[in-house]
Amino acid sequence: MSWLETSIMARKGVAGGEMRARHAFTIADQGQFHYVYGPYANPVLHVAPGAVVTVETHDAFEGAITSESDSPSQKLNFPFLNPQTGPIHVEGAEKGDALAVRILSISPRGPQPVGTTCLIPEFGGLVGTGSTAMLNAPLAEVVRKIRVDEAGVHWSETLTLPYEPFIGTIGTAPEIEAISSLQPDYYGGNMDLPDVAPGAIIYLPVNREGGYLYLGDCHAIQGDGELCGVALEIPATVELQIDLIKGYGNGWPQLETEDMIMFVGSARPLEDATRIAYRELVRWVAQETGASEIDAYMLLTMCGKVRLGNMVDPKYSVGASIAKRFLK
Amino acid sequence: MSWLETSIMARKGVAGGEMRARHAFTIADQGQFHYVYGPYANPVLHVAPGAVVTVETHDAFEGAITSESDSPSQKLNFPFLNPQTGPIHVEGAEKGDALAVRILSISPRGPQPVGTTCLIPEFGGLVGTGSTAMLNAPLAEVVRKIRVDEAGVHWSETLTLPYEPFIGTIGTAPEIEAISSLQPDYYGGNMDLPDVAPGAIIYLPVNREGGYLYLGDCHAIQGDGELCGVALEIPATVELQIDLIKGYGNGWPQLETEDMIMFVGSARPLEDATRIAYRELVRWVAQETGASEIDAYMLLTMCGKVRLGNMVDPKYSVGASIAKRFLK
Amino acid sequence: MSWLETSIMARKGVAGGEMRARHAFTIADQGQFHYVYGPYANPVLHVAPGAVVTVETHDAFEGAITSESDSPSQKLNFPFLNPQTGPIHVEGAEKGDALAVRILSISPRGPQPVGTTCLIPEFGGLVGTGSTAMLNAPLAEVVRKIRVDEAGVHWSETLTLPYEPFIGTIGTAPEIEAISSLQPDYYGGNMDLPDVAPGAIIYLPVNREGGYLYLGDCHAIQGDGELCGVALEIPATVELQIDLIKGYGNGWPQLETEDMIMFVGSARPLEDATRIAYRELVRWVAQETGASEIDAYMLLTMCGKVRLGNMVDPKYSVGASIAKRFLK
Amino acid sequence: MSWLETSIMARKGVAGGEMRARHAFTIADQGQFHYVYGPYANPVLHVAPGAVVTVETHDAFEGAITSESDSPSQKLNFPFLNPQTGPIHVEGAEKGDALAVRILSISPRGPQPVGTTCLIPEFGGLVGTGSTAMLNAPLAEVVRKIRVDEAGVHWSETLTLPYEPFIGTIGTAPEIEAISSLQPDYYGGNMDLPDVAPGAIIYLPVNREGGYLYLGDCHAIQGDGELCGVALEIPATVELQIDLIKGYGNGWPQLETEDMIMFVGSARPLEDATRIAYRELVRWVAQETGASEIDAYMLLTMCGKVRLGNMVDPKYSVGASIAKRFLK
Repeated sequence: MSWLETSIMARKGVAGGEMRARHAFTIADQGQFHYVYGPYANPVLHVAPGAVVTVETHDAFEGAITSESDSPSQKLNFPFLNPQTGPIHVEGAEKGDALAVRILSISPRGPQPVGTTCLIPEFGGLVGTGSTAMLNAPLAEVVRKIRVDEAGVHWSETLTLPYEPFIGTIGTAPEIEAISSLQPDYYGGNMDLPDVAPGAIIYLPVNREGGYLYLGDCHAIQGDGELCGVALEIPATVELQIDLIKGYGNGWPQLETEDMIMFVGSARPLEDATRIAYRELVRWVAQETGASEIDAYMLLTMCGKVRLGNMVDPKYSVGASIAKRFLK
Repeated sequence: MSWLETSIMARKGVAGGEMRARHAFTIADQGQFHYVYGPYANPVLHVAPGAVVTVETHDAFEGAITSESDSPSQKLNFPFLNPQTGPIHVEGAEKGDALAVRILSISPRGPQPVGTTCLIPEFGGLVGTGSTAMLNAPLAEVVRKIRVDEAGVHWSETLTLPYEPFIGTIGTAPEIEAISSLQPDYYGGNMDLPDVAPGAIIYLPVNREGGYLYLGDCHAIQGDGELCGVALEIPATVELQIDLIKGYGNGWPQLETEDMIMFVGSARPLEDATRIAYRELVRWVAQETGASEIDAYMLLTMCGKVRLGNMVDPKYSVGASIAKRFLK
Repeated sequence: MSWLETSIMARKGVAGGEMRARHAFTIADQGQFHYVYGPYANPVLHVAPGAVVTVETHDAFEGAITSESDSPSQKLNFPFLNPQTGPIHVEGAEKGDALAVRILSISPRGPQPVGTTCLIPEFGGLVGTGSTAMLNAPLAEVVRKIRVDEAGVHWSETLTLPYEPFIGTIGTAPEIEAISSLQPDYYGGNMDLPDVAPGAIIYLPVNREGGYLYLGDCHAIQGDGELCGVALEIPATVELQIDLIKGYGNGWPQLETEDMIMFVGSARPLEDATRIAYRELVRWVAQETGASEIDAYMLLTMCGKVRLGNMVDPKYSVGASIAKRFLK
Repeated sequence: MSWLETSIMARKGVAGGEMRARHAFTIADQGQFHYVYGPYANPVLHVAPGAVVTVETHDAFEGAITSESDSPSQKLNFPFLNPQTGPIHVEGAEKGDALAVRILSISPRGPQPVGTTCLIPEFGGLVGTGSTAMLNAPLAEVVRKIRVDEAGVHWSETLTLPYEPFIGTIGTAPEIEAISSLQPDYYGGNMDLPDVAPGAIIYLPVNREGGYLYLGDCHAIQGDGELCGVALEIPATVELQIDLIKGYGNGWPQLETEDMIMFVGSARPLEDATRIAYRELVRWVAQETGASEIDAYMLLTMCGKVRLGNMVDPKYSVGASIAKRFLK
């Protein structure tokens, strides 16, 4: 029996974790991308729980950086960055529910070299930025175009890195806010968390009717923290299974894999992101196992794991998790 | 000669700092308040540079807390908090410009006790919150209704505090985002900075055509930091003079009084808010006086002043200022 | 009647706020300076409560920077920085008590130009540092030597800044730790808070027998935050009155002037320094006035004031205060 | 060939990674423990490079918590916490060198239940503390005594956690400071990093003659962040191999295992700890591989890993690492 049969999605989903109607959605279908997570856009696709959707996403630069001689600061037009596909309307979703989104696959899409990374002035984890304002001169701009295929990320002639794709930005619409797709928050968004990868199910709080799922910003590989601010950005084809869980609106995104349960917090400073993630997990473990919050707090002191998503976005993202084998 | 004649508004404004057409705008005219700063609302008033506008604002709770026996957590309906009057469309304003808003007066409006403060669970500067997530039990809810008039804030039978009113929340619309009126940011918003008071001019960056000025959340008095999260909230009648400065779009709000120039930064952690405010001020002093950035940095090391706005909102706000007498 | 007669020092001090024996102590008497606040040094002076002590301090660089062509990074020998005079042993002081130190005067000492400020690589509020590690190139080193007298700080040919001297570093020894004099903490130390000036009384927790008072690092003027990391550093002659309050060991330094009561917190991030200062003040106001902590919390929300000391040291320092007139 | 033969210790150590003289050192030999990392204590043991030392450590409470009905706040006597064995003097060590300390084994020592964890008021990652000062009531005190053997941590009747021991606190003496053993910093100290485990070599900067190695605070298991502030504390017998590397004084601790190279940073807020760790790693990778700092920065953006040590100590600790297979 696959672990999927006992997943939260299978146990609680409206479609019971079943794969039902299939949809394919291209960037041509999308037309205009979105640069905010909000309720003011019109859905581009309507699906019912159980839908399996093949979605095309663009890279974080909407393809504007085509050569290693490009200047990011000239090519990029803030705030029109990190283009999002969507929103996808999920039938029956209402405030207080959760979308369950299982990631089936992520494939690079487009001509080689399909991957892009770069240094952008006043952006990144080890430089002064608009938020951590400094008087030091910025680093010089650098662009790297990298060949990526399912066999690996061809970083240099001597070094091939593994292909470990994930979705950098995914989430639902806030109820009344429309927030830059550069930001992560309680609804998901730009978490840049490598665990949001094929094999995982992400549970996202629904804040308005239809849920309004957005996604984009796939990465071929990324280290913890997305240190320079730009992972290996790729246009991608993403295959998702979408279910709906009524009344399962946790405060923050939850992630499930075969082996673990994770909550994701996003905030500054980084300890606050970690606190959010761990408090959500404490509460969930207590509820799930019947333990007290204090017992869950002490158990996680022994066996909790922390994964740093990004420490470069307007809020930093952290996942806190527990192995399922300790949830006895 | 009044200092106003040499203010930035007078020197650079389209209306040259002159008072021209008068407008009066009530909460009845407003109808529906707004809870986000964004471009998706329709202007409720159109004015030209030089306009003098009398605007009614509601208190941060939209009047929902009427008695000391009310429970804030039951009466308040997140995210429909901190109702804003506006947006006011300013003729000729375009991205890259600044609105100059001179605050002429702020008067309490409505029946006594007109002032409200309270403790809201998981909100405030000395308690665990949604961002600084803790497992401690929240403090009990408390409501205080306070009589306020121009003579003072009648805190208790033995203590009258001064009436020192200011606008807690004021700003322009972002270009594509719609952000909660509980948050401060580069466009202004919920800065809760006591210097935004009668006698001051605030310069706000324009991010879209018309500028879209919002305001609300007047306070009869507030200490530095807005410690428990709720100042002495009052419905108010605010008199403003609005001018427009073409091409004067600083990155963050600027404040001018007879004696000083201030920039306001909003971020977490608090040092980042302070860094933003000081970097903006360093750059402005350098440009204004012809000094180098390094000279301005060293001068501000000697005589810069810092004012803490709030340390309770989604971002904290800090003003960094220099006395005009040191700008020789 | 002077406010001093109702000061905490006068009301609770062993010497009742009286000036008694006079002592003079020069840097020649000191011999070797100290670079840590700790219990492992031998007292250089023994005084009884009521002592009036004239103490000479060196500047933060121990006089090593003598010319505007000096290179700070070559002249300075970390960790032998911020030389401290002391420790002064106060008769009868025991763990749990407080030293009350009234600052009578601070005069520049030595040949002109007596003041020094500079930019030190990887140090300061708007640059990457050893703690806020960045890859950006550091700013160039700069030294300014400035003439200072009681009439003013002669910053440039056209600008004279006021002479507003204070003690940058003052405190007692920890019980078992010996901590760099570059750091502020619960025992005082390098707070760089401009309120520690003539006219003020500072109350410092005693952590070991004799208290062990250290001081140094006088500044002729400094803006809030000590932005570039180096104020206008002067060697000085400091006149102090030292009293002892049995059993008055607050957790953190307290400051009293004619008009206000302040507590000082030191921590990173800056909101934590502010939280410490405000929590100490909440508790003190509650105890002093018989109000509940909740009432004190709400009162300080209305009228608390915050002063930023430094935001460049290993911990940042913040003072939170209340005007005495609100303590009814 | 073992990876040890190509370790930094083997390649650069004075003893070339060889095991030479054996020493055994008990807590009876130690006599008085130390509660600070500093130069003011006398060495308890002198060893030469290549020494293999069997050392006994006490638990973080010096055995004071013996029963689940104990009250930590009554039994513990701050600042006499986290007792350290040492200092061990390493022959030939001078400022600017590094100690290489290979961890051979860690065994629980003493009668069952040998493990202790607890909740201490105002201490922990999800509660208000002395630094993150709150007005909320503290959580109730709780003590758990746990049976631990090499087979596992017997958490409850139904749950056995793995025995994953490591050294919570290890480091060298600062040059002139004596810092609480509760704190981590550039010299090591209370990092609470689970990677400091059997199989790893830690490289610690030497700040004074003899190095002065201290250690204590072994943990039978701990989750990332040491969430409640107290891991599963055990008295232990630790077997170490100590070598000396002349002139290899990195700014912060470095860790090496068969598979990876890590640097450890300690600071608040947590992003600053992470920045320190990553900047050290950027510089080391650049130097080791001949790449530029920019190339190393971009490579780590793709494949850097982050491990959270503690987020409860006076400074938080983070390890940033790269897999050795990417160092081509």
